[in-house]
Amino acid sequence: MVWTKKDLLALEDLTKEEIEHILDTAGSFKEVSTRDIKKVPALRGKTVVNLFYEPSTRTRISFEVAAKRLSADVINVNIETSSVKKGETLIDTGRNIQALKADIVVLRHKHSGAAAMLARHLNIGVVNAGDGWHEHPTQALLDMLTIKEKLGKIKGLKVSIIGDIAHSRVARSNIWGLTKLGAIVTVCAPKMLIPVGIEQMGAKVTNDIEVALKDADAINILRMQFERDDRVNFPVQLEYFKTFGITKERLEKVKKNILVMHPGPINRGIEMSSEVADGEHSVILEQVTNGIAARMAVLYLVAQGK
Amino acid sequence: MVWTKKDLLALEDLTKEEIEHILDTAGSFKEVSTRDIKKVPALRGKTVVNLFYEPSTRTRISFEVAAKRLSADVINVNIETSSVKKGETLIDTGRNIQALKADIVVLRHKHSGAAAMLARHLNIGVVNAGDGWHEHPTQALLDMLTIKEKLGKIKGLKVSIIGDIAHSRVARSNIWGLTKLGAIVTVCAPKMLIPVGIEQMGAKVTNDIEVALKDADAINILRMQFERDDRVNFPVQLEYFKTFGITKERLEKVKKNILVMHPGPINRGIEMSSEVADGEHSVILEQVTNGIAARMAVLYLVAQGK
Amino acid sequence: MVWTKKDLLALEDLTKEEIEHILDTAGSFKEVSTRDIKKVPALRGKTVVNLFYEPSTRTRISFEVAAKRLSADVINVNIETSSVKKGETLIDTGRNIQALKADIVVLRHKHSGAAAMLARHLNIGVVNAGDGWHEHPTQALLDMLTIKEKLGKIKGLKVSIIGDIAHSRVARSNIWGLTKLGAIVTVCAPKMLIPVGIEQMGAKVTNDIEVALKDADAINILRMQFERDDRVNFPVQLEYFKTFGITKERLEKVKKNILVMHPGPINRGIEMSSEVADGEHSVILEQVTNGIAARMAVLYLVAQGK
Repeated sequence: MVWTKKDLLALEDLTKEEIEHILDTAGSFKEVSTRDIKKVPALRGKTVVNLFYEPSTRTRISFEVAAKRLSADVINVNIETSSVKKGETLIDTGRNIQALKADIVVLRHKHSGAAAMLARHLNIGVVNAGDGWHEHPTQALLDMLTIKEKLGKIKGLKVSIIGDIAHSRVARSNIWGLTKLGAIVTVCAPKMLIPVGIEQMGAKVTNDIEVALKDADAINILRMQFERDDRVNFPVQLEYFKTFGITKERLEKVKKNILVMHPGPINRGIEMSSEVADGEHSVILEQVTNGIAARMAVLYLVAQGK
Repeated sequence: MVWTKKDLLALEDLTKEEIEHILDTAGSFKEVSTRDIKKVPALRGKTVVNLFYEPSTRTRISFEVAAKRLSADVINVNIETSSVKKGETLIDTGRNIQALKADIVVLRHKHSGAAAMLARHLNIGVVNAGDGWHEHPTQALLDMLTIKEKLGKIKGLKVSIIGDIAHSRVARSNIWGLTKLGAIVTVCAPKMLIPVGIEQMGAKVTNDIEVALKDADAINILRMQFERDDRVNFPVQLEYFKTFGITKERLEKVKKNILVMHPGPINRGIEMSSEVADGEHSVILEQVTNGIAARMAVLYLVAQGK
Repeated sequence: MVWTKKDLLALEDLTKEEIEHILDTAGSFKEVSTRDIKKVPALRGKTVVNLFYEPSTRTRISFEVAAKRLSADVINVNIETSSVKKGETLIDTGRNIQALKADIVVLRHKHSGAAAMLARHLNIGVVNAGDGWHEHPTQALLDMLTIKEKLGKIKGLKVSIIGDIAHSRVARSNIWGLTKLGAIVTVCAPKMLIPVGIEQMGAKVTNDIEVALKDADAINILRMQFERDDRVNFPVQLEYFKTFGITKERLEKVKKNILVMHPGPINRGIEMSSEVADGEHSVILEQVTNGIAARMAVLYLVAQGK
């Protein structure tokens, strides 16, 4: 297929074919990072701006590495809300970046819809690197790439997403992407962390971790954002781990080749035991590797899509 | 002409011919950013250090993009005054950068004269990216490039600079540059924001916005640095907007092809209405685009000038 | 010799031959930074990650310049302890960087042994850019390169290290490196700043600056980390300068071609007078220049050493 979209904003907006095309493109870019010289000239002379309104070392680095392996020039811009003394609107900032003749803006923003709004106002490409609780499409793409690579397909597979679904853009992007590609998605969390209307997105809901694990081909475990004061939260964390934490014991009762996934960074002993994080089922580091390939594919396609 | 200066410190120091040479060079570099591969090898293997003692995302990005389009290696160094635990003098820092065999230091500093002082102590090129209230020469160069491009010339034109002239390095650099190239410059501000001695630089002074607008070919509107607490300042801001703010109504009475300029970031509703900022007269985003060309020219020339 | 080590962690771990091999390699890379195009393709398509848990502009810049002169892609990651909201362990962070298919991690960390621990868990190269009070091997390598270059040899020379030995990774790395190469090392400090057991590393100890200076071929003066409140500390600083500070008068009584070294940044008037810092014996800026060559050599060798 010929890619025509100038932006990558949300998996909700993409067709099954478009998602598959990104995954296929990512698959072929993956080889680049195994070469002795890990570089292709695809985006030589292009300028990619990482515009991050929320701190996110991991996602920023992944996009930066991806862009550099495509030979793009990368400009990092971290705008922390506290230091916006010379504040201007997101749209004005975006228009300025466009006026620099940048080619792609990679945007991380705390407000849902920020990337879509920016994309409407710019002629250059916008890639959503996470907008509020809305979507984080490249994370879901790398998750799907990992499943496809490990299990050979996505269609018909059972994937359970476990954790704070309500506040997770990763969950939303995964639900849209996986269901479009024919997977059966179950979300599993305490009731208060299940958002209203999640079934309409095509996901089954359970509050029982045993139900989520039974027959699952892959589980995607979300990071729990507990407060930082561990003295206060320790009982809550322990309770969470007892009720939803993935342990070796729980994995012994499920499919032999189940994939254990996590977008990182892991809270060892909260979302899963260390044994599981480092165990035979874990594909967490493969996800990181696939993140480069998925983001190379997205940057490459978006650069064509004008 | 053959460029011989190793530094770009202030437009006050340059001859008419030198300024015109920079503008001509910028004009020819402008095409690079319209190419599919926006890169020339002019500064390949050179090291440009952005040494910023004041935060300035916009200017830093503009220099970084300019240097990368010339194929230079760019090192960003942000030294915030608060965190200078291992403080050393500016000169020692500069000598260290020189010892790294860097080729050009782009310096932003809060003290007037910092760039000139550094340049005296180093053999490598120093580009002033703003020193206190003194000068911001590349901003004025991009402003002049924009006027020349849009109106075909600078000589004989009437340019009004509106806003906080007293605390503006942008105003100072523009007055020096424009008057050297034969423009007639008027500055317009409330009395307390007009610095003593500005007429000696060659500028006319008015406190009446109607006078500043009448017959002007271009207006350059400076950013007002109101305190951040908008509740306290709202009446002051409103008063400023009423007295000096550029509105559609005010522009209806002036030259049909007047240029509306602003170094950014804009305070919409304070210095000008949104309608004007986005209107037919506004060349604010062209200024940003020309910033790349002007800075490419400066970096390129300074690299030759040893 | 053929380099086989994938990491550079500590000079204590290296043989005399390995240290000499790094110095020889550095010597041949030094020429690159004198070229018009200061770049060789040695690490083209490789990814170097500067992972800094402590702020260090100087060391980070030096590694960044070194890596870029080798044509590597460089990713800067500054993790300040205060902002580790999404904290993960150093090992998990390292594994993530490895999963990005980075080739070398340059690690600055406040804990002694951090680099060695990381290296044990990763297949990719780890370069220690300073770990607690343990070692700062590339600093000692550039110091030795400077001595060798200026005095033609290291074997048999008398080198005195002056200042806060107890809390100095620079002192430790220098003692290991210099003694392995046959220099006679003396450390000089007030008693409370001499660590227990330093003689077992092969260094002589004195508390008398005159003894440290007598017959010395080179002195390496460490930075004193006095508290920031200069009003409180002024008497202490003055006392230190009187007792240990290097002055023109003290240098008049010693070897004519003595080298004065300092890892920077200098406290003028505390560790030495300004006259000495900028004087004929000072090779402080040559050290900075040699830092690029030493780090190019280390990055180059480590990249081969798998």
